[in-house]
Amino acid sequence: MDSPDTDGIIAKRAGPLRSGPLSYIGAFIAALPDLYAADKNPTGFIAAVVAENKCERLQQRFLQRMAEVPLPDVAVMNYGSMTGSPALKRALCNLLKRTFVDSPSVRFKSDNMAVLSGCTACIDALAFLLADEGEGVLLPTPTYAAFDNDLGARAHLRIVDFELDEDRGDIEGQLDGAVEAARARGVVVRGLLITNPCNPRGTLYSDDTIRSMLRWSLDNKVHYIADEIYALSVHADGVTFRSAMSVLYEDLVGRGEVSAEAAASFFHLLYGLSKDWCASGLRIGCLYSDNAPLHEALSSLAPMASVSNYQQHLVAGILNDEAFTAAFVADNRAMLRESYVALSDGLARLGVEYVEAVAGLFLFADLRPWMDEQSIEGEDRLWRSMLDLKVILTPGTACKAKQPGWFRICACCPRRPCARASHAQTRRSLSQRVALIRSPGFAWVEPAAVAELLHRLGRLLRS
Amino acid sequence: MDSPDTDGIIAKRAGPLRSGPLSYIGAFIAALPDLYAADKNPTGFIAAVVAENKCERLQQRFLQRMAEVPLPDVAVMNYGSMTGSPALKRALCNLLKRTFVDSPSVRFKSDNMAVLSGCTACIDALAFLLADEGEGVLLPTPTYAAFDNDLGARAHLRIVDFELDEDRGDIEGQLDGAVEAARARGVVVRGLLITNPCNPRGTLYSDDTIRSMLRWSLDNKVHYIADEIYALSVHADGVTFRSAMSVLYEDLVGRGEVSAEAAASFFHLLYGLSKDWCASGLRIGCLYSDNAPLHEALSSLAPMASVSNYQQHLVAGILNDEAFTAAFVADNRAMLRESYVALSDGLARLGVEYVEAVAGLFLFADLRPWMDEQSIEGEDRLWRSMLDLKVILTPGTACKAKQPGWFRICACCPRRPCARASHAQTRRSLSQRVALIRSPGFAWVEPAAVAELLHRLGRLLRS
Repeated sequence: MDSPDTDGIIAKRAGPLRSGPLSYIGAFIAALPDLYAADKNPTGFIAAVVAENKCERLQQRFLQRMAEVPLPDVAVMNYGSMTGSPALKRALCNLLKRTFVDSPSVRFKSDNMAVLSGCTACIDALAFLLADEGEGVLLPTPTYAAFDNDLGARAHLRIVDFELDEDRGDIEGQLDGAVEAARARGVVVRGLLITNPCNPRGTLYSDDTIRSMLRWSLDNKVHYIADEIYALSVHADGVTFRSAMSVLYEDLVGRGEVSAEAAASFFHLLYGLSKDWCASGLRIGCLYSDNAPLHEALSSLAPMASVSNYQQHLVAGILNDEAFTAAFVADNRAMLRESYVALSDGLARLGVEYVEAVAGLFLFADLRPWMDEQSIEGEDRLWRSMLDLKVILTPGTACKAKQPGWFRICACCPRRPCARASHAQTRRSLSQRVALIRSPGFAWVEPAAVAELLHRLGRLLRS
Repeated sequence: MDSPDTDGIIAKRAGPLRSGPLSYIGAFIAALPDLYAADKNPTGFIAAVVAENKCERLQQRFLQRMAEVPLPDVAVMNYGSMTGSPALKRALCNLLKRTFVDSPSVRFKSDNMAVLSGCTACIDALAFLLADEGEGVLLPTPTYAAFDNDLGARAHLRIVDFELDEDRGDIEGQLDGAVEAARARGVVVRGLLITNPCNPRGTLYSDDTIRSMLRWSLDNKVHYIADEIYALSVHADGVTFRSAMSVLYEDLVGRGEVSAEAAASFFHLLYGLSKDWCASGLRIGCLYSDNAPLHEALSSLAPMASVSNYQQHLVAGILNDEAFTAAFVADNRAMLRESYVALSDGLARLGVEYVEAVAGLFLFADLRPWMDEQSIEGEDRLWRSMLDLKVILTPGTACKAKQPGWFRICACCPRRPCARASHAQTRRSLSQRVALIRSPGFAWVEPAAVAELLHRLGRLLRS
């Protein structure tokens, strides 16, 4: 089993991990020393491949607010609860309660909140504790590309990906079908992992769908894992996000359709600061569950992924500031909307179709018409053609998209205030010149980078 | 396999983790709401069971110095290297180089340093990546009680504990014997984990022993894991600690006894801030290894245990301050010495024998004369008798001590400046009154807590 070059110097199970957590991470890392900058490196790589909210204006605001949090007691230097400080657990429960889990039917017990080193650590721990090696987790596609690593690298779970067609209805039947197909491959399904808002599409599941999935999971003793890390990144006007936890307790437990016991045992909520709070570098993820044995077992794994008590103190201080957090969320939404409009308008002018997004830091674009062949190989060649133009997007196949040819386009690396797309630009004019995007309000992505991205894509798509 | 009360709501592999990372952790957690405080709760629990340097004076100094580190660039809010920031990796390499790994033969490559969420996370990752499920790690006893969890909970390695008798010589033969015994039980040995300075004894291995163990490991392609987390907590006058990494490169690779390739593949150094820097709450551990495939594979696991970039920035700033770190280490050593003298003198007055320690935050005491029976059950009864007096020590059996009846005694919970032991106290006088310990320089443990600990032990041992 050892590959010849490791020659027994690492474990057999470490071998498959050597390629890193994402298929495209090598290209991204290779690009890092040569990233695009309008002024200093205009021919560098545009790495629109990582779902990261890098709005510097908001990040500065967060950093500044951290500096204003009163110094902690010396006790932060000591061991504390490895699953997070009581203060941060309470702050997170309160934050959720006053934002996207605002149903009066939901009762958080802050002891049942766990804080670990990023949502990735939470998923890894959940995977290890809720299912045994080789068991399966249902995952509707397209999905977040890193779930393969999060569920598989150490917990050794198997992903059972399936298409969930909301328009078709009969959600329960579709889930039964996926379980049936897994069983035929010898895989026992233990969990259903739902990222809502959806990554990579930036869409929301309907309440009906969430209700059906919850009812089905809890009836079948399948763990429902609600990944709502983009909950506060809904940017479309008039669209509101309703947490699966609200749906569960208001619509199902409240009406007697699901028992409180089943809800306590089989429902788990994931959240974190990386996306909605522009703070992926702080490595704060959290997991809420009323499953008591899960928390008991987590006490043995949490020491391997706990968060600095000092960092927790600073974050608790910020999250408890209701005025700050409300303004931050509102400004982030406005910024995300402007950013989305700039990117989507530019793509439309290039004749590129995409899934209309209402949330998230990305959109999912359909580049099938530009593939030389409708296949994974065709997608890979198109991805490499973009790489030749120093554009890195997330290939749909990595997101387990049902058809090859889709690409997730994320924010580019911003270093300056950004701008709105000029609507005077037409698709044809892009072949000659860069579309300059200007507006002081648009601060998510570097405007020149978006323009350059569109320009390079335009060159490729018309070639 | 499911225990009846979990009823399939967690994985089978999660079941054994429900009791927590340490056999005695339940008693400790139960005691937390009722901890001893000389003024407010003089009858509370004295939990001398956690190896934690809680010297408030030093902790305040560390916190104060963190507050003086210049604010970071906004980039700390973004994803960075999941194995630690380049700045902190360099700072750690430089710290090691100018403190306990100061041999000119050692060449650190800072890219080969990895920073994770505490030394526990580093051990967990190493265990997963260096050996496969069911394989064994040699561990000389007595040892750190949490290795069972660190190596076993998720990596599912087996501990092969054995007595290492330095006086007997023929270290290689003793190691061969341990491997032979493991093989007889069907366990293949992949690693040798050496904590030096030793926990729980506070002693150092001789250079001869370290050389023999290194030579044997590298000759046999067994991973040598040097856990040197107490390296700067050597407190005895005239004693200096020499890192296994210095021994390896100076005495073995330098003299051609071991190849540089074997050293690069099979030697791994663990360190962290929890002990020597009074900073267990910051969750900073590190791992140095020149094994390239190990680092490649670690890239898949590191996102599950990475440290806040903001916290890393602050720590790098402190560790780069040579004057600050030198003074901190010197003051910590003096404080540890005073603390050790107070505790050991008090025990001697009680007629308790102990292993003379030169390092660490604890000593290993021989309470065998006070057991009603020389057995694990006898040790457990003695431990429970102490618990009845609200004294919690680490039972030697949890440290895999060869004979029942040994106990590790750690620092008590300090909340105030502490004092030196009064040498006027005698063993007999302790039955009547608390030995008051006074000295402004002694700030590790609360003086009244040490006195009260000795008083309660005295009551028990004379009963």
